[in-house]
Amino acid sequence: MVEKNILRVGIAGLGNVGSEVVRQIIEKVDLLQERCNKEIKVVAVSARDKSKKRDLNLDKITWYNDPLDLANDKNIDVVVELIGGEKSVAYNLCKESLLNGKHVVTANKAMLAHYGSDFAQLAFEQNKIFAFEAAVAGGIPIIKVLKESLVSSKFKKISGIMNGTCNYILSTMEATSREFSDILQEAQRLGYAESDPSFDIDGIDTAHKLAIVASIAFGAKIDFSQIYVEGIRHIALTDINYAKDLGYKIKLLGVCSQKNNMLEHAVYPVMVAFNSPIANISNANNAILIRSDTIDNLLLTGPGAGGAATASAVIADICDIACGRSSYMFNKTPNHLTNFKVLPIKDHECAYYLRLKVLDKTGVLAIVTSIFNKAGISMDSLLQKSSKSDLEGLAVDIVGITHITSEDKIKFALAELAKIDSVVEAPHIIRVDK
Amino acid sequence: MVEKNILRVGIAGLGNVGSEVVRQIIEKVDLLQERCNKEIKVVAVSARDKSKKRDLNLDKITWYNDPLDLANDKNIDVVVELIGGEKSVAYNLCKESLLNGKHVVTANKAMLAHYGSDFAQLAFEQNKIFAFEAAVAGGIPIIKVLKESLVSSKFKKISGIMNGTCNYILSTMEATSREFSDILQEAQRLGYAESDPSFDIDGIDTAHKLAIVASIAFGAKIDFSQIYVEGIRHIALTDINYAKDLGYKIKLLGVCSQKNNMLEHAVYPVMVAFNSPIANISNANNAILIRSDTIDNLLLTGPGAGGAATASAVIADICDIACGRSSYMFNKTPNHLTNFKVLPIKDHECAYYLRLKVLDKTGVLAIVTSIFNKAGISMDSLLQKSSKSDLEGLAVDIVGITHITSEDKIKFALAELAKIDSVVEAPHIIRVDK
Repeated sequence: MVEKNILRVGIAGLGNVGSEVVRQIIEKVDLLQERCNKEIKVVAVSARDKSKKRDLNLDKITWYNDPLDLANDKNIDVVVELIGGEKSVAYNLCKESLLNGKHVVTANKAMLAHYGSDFAQLAFEQNKIFAFEAAVAGGIPIIKVLKESLVSSKFKKISGIMNGTCNYILSTMEATSREFSDILQEAQRLGYAESDPSFDIDGIDTAHKLAIVASIAFGAKIDFSQIYVEGIRHIALTDINYAKDLGYKIKLLGVCSQKNNMLEHAVYPVMVAFNSPIANISNANNAILIRSDTIDNLLLTGPGAGGAATASAVIADICDIACGRSSYMFNKTPNHLTNFKVLPIKDHECAYYLRLKVLDKTGVLAIVTSIFNKAGISMDSLLQKSSKSDLEGLAVDIVGITHITSEDKIKFALAELAKIDSVVEAPHIIRVDK
Repeated sequence: MVEKNILRVGIAGLGNVGSEVVRQIIEKVDLLQERCNKEIKVVAVSARDKSKKRDLNLDKITWYNDPLDLANDKNIDVVVELIGGEKSVAYNLCKESLLNGKHVVTANKAMLAHYGSDFAQLAFEQNKIFAFEAAVAGGIPIIKVLKESLVSSKFKKISGIMNGTCNYILSTMEATSREFSDILQEAQRLGYAESDPSFDIDGIDTAHKLAIVASIAFGAKIDFSQIYVEGIRHIALTDINYAKDLGYKIKLLGVCSQKNNMLEHAVYPVMVAFNSPIANISNANNAILIRSDTIDNLLLTGPGAGGAATASAVIADICDIACGRSSYMFNKTPNHLTNFKVLPIKDHECAYYLRLKVLDKTGVLAIVTSIFNKAGISMDSLLQKSSKSDLEGLAVDIVGITHITSEDKIKFALAELAKIDSVVEAPHIIRVDK
């Protein structure tokens, strides 16, 4: 017999987050009932290895070796997918669960970035809830805030630090004056970074989250391949130090905005001014800055990962279902999601920081400035700096920040600069948020 | 005939916020319908003066001179109370509306701080929604985040800058090195502060908001008279400058926490360290810092007032009703709200900043330290500073920060200090968040 005052939850994946979801639901059963007027009950779980030590009492909970069995269990109202991976098991589990009339909760950003629109369609057809607060920025409730709290907002721009590993690396480089590779290795030893770190440090994880945010904010049908993605491997300690001299910090941001009916969404390192609200977010914290027609600069900051914080977001979704609270998956009916024209990165406009290593010869600065002139770029500042790491007199850094210009003009200038014999290293650029 | 796909809204009060609510609902009717699957329609309004120029097209909207008529209009589903004032008309309108089976949305913090528990009971009995996102921190969605996003949280401490006028005054004092009264007069001229500013600067407005937050976070039955309230009138530029020297900024905070089954809630100026997330919130912005068992330091920052931002919060509540999203008014059923024992301010423990003006005579510092000794207070730092505003050699400032101690020990020390002839001015204290 189905008990109406119980919401029965099946959970697939008992890693860091999954275990914490089970633990919190069990330990806080009274608290949740008090707040939701419903008992939340984990009735079944599935994970790869039943024998793994988990410090959880799973005695009265059905164990499935195959997570797909959760989709077929008639005693489950909500399936929570915490397996991860953009397709395969996770995808099939979510799809089957919806088809079998169950609500779905997931933290799977990769899957949503690739198949979010399909799931929106299916959830709409099945009249079921597909919730994913934990997929973006862990414990920060960005999804609910965008969809429900800012329901009357026409969004202008959303930008954020959405990857804790990158922010940890960048802020530790700055705080300890150590190079990228050094901090990365340390982060790997401490378990903050994966042994294959490319997912984080090449910006892909941020891009997954950005895709979700852009879809909600602008009603965009996600096309993940259209997002420009640049990571932080090329950020040198030298750049962080010059940035500091110039009054900036370097952050990996996901940024989306809408202009002239075109969507702009990109992930790249950005120099943000010291007094910008996002500049002071350090360590593994995340932060998301929202600008809309009604709210200037609403900033949410907090833990973007971690078992307890991410589990808190998963449980919020479960309790929303328990309380009958829902919204459209991407803030409108799936048939109204738009295939936006995407602004190509070559047309992106902003200020740029440039660092060139040149031979310290008379006339080099004049050649460099003439190239910027030819490219149609005007400089806000241009400085010749002696680079302590080189033999005095042999090579110097030229460091500058442009006025607002376009990416293709910068690329033209970089190509021209590369032809000059006196330029001894490929020029470095970082976008600047002025 | 009642149309099921329309939510009919009646609005009382067409000031800054009320007008903006009407305007946004009219202008964004399609956007809201797309996101809520329901038309939101303002069907009636009431305000003091119908002839006032408002730049709103009210042609097809029923006008009531008496706001209570909204409570009796059978064509209204939701009454939005934006009149203000802790009792009288606003109170009667909300009560009658609930009794007549209407949902209520309000931004009225004063009313909620005094009668919130009563309204929770009545709304529960009537099975109607009583929503008030706009009552705390304007455009920052603190109510929804506390109740829904952090549904699994056991809250530890919530502290925040909840009054834009005070934050504007304090941050402008710091930025421009001008005295309190000077900035206050300017703020009054510019319309940032009321002609009778006591509501803001004496901390009462912050206390209203804190009462609401504490009730939600801890399930506390509100007893407004139990909140310790201290404003910012006594903050001198000298204190702001000494604070800066010591690495702190001064902010008016509302703070609530729970310890040993006792509730602590108070409003007072606090010295917060430069690197604290709340220290860098400047101008009229608000910020709320949440600490719970699952989320460390979730910080929400944004516009705490202003017509558009506050209207955005009001419309969020209206759309929640349209979408059938609701929660208990104070996060649990009203019969479960607790009459907490409140920690008296004399038992409050923290570090304290002290500033004494003393005659510059041999042995004064020794007398002062002996008094702290007698009071059982140990000092973290104690400095004698020459005060430039006095004639050299006549009086000097002694400035110090204590280790963590209790308010009654500090009060004892202050009383002893007042007895000393060499102390030429009543000592100043400010609590320090270390």
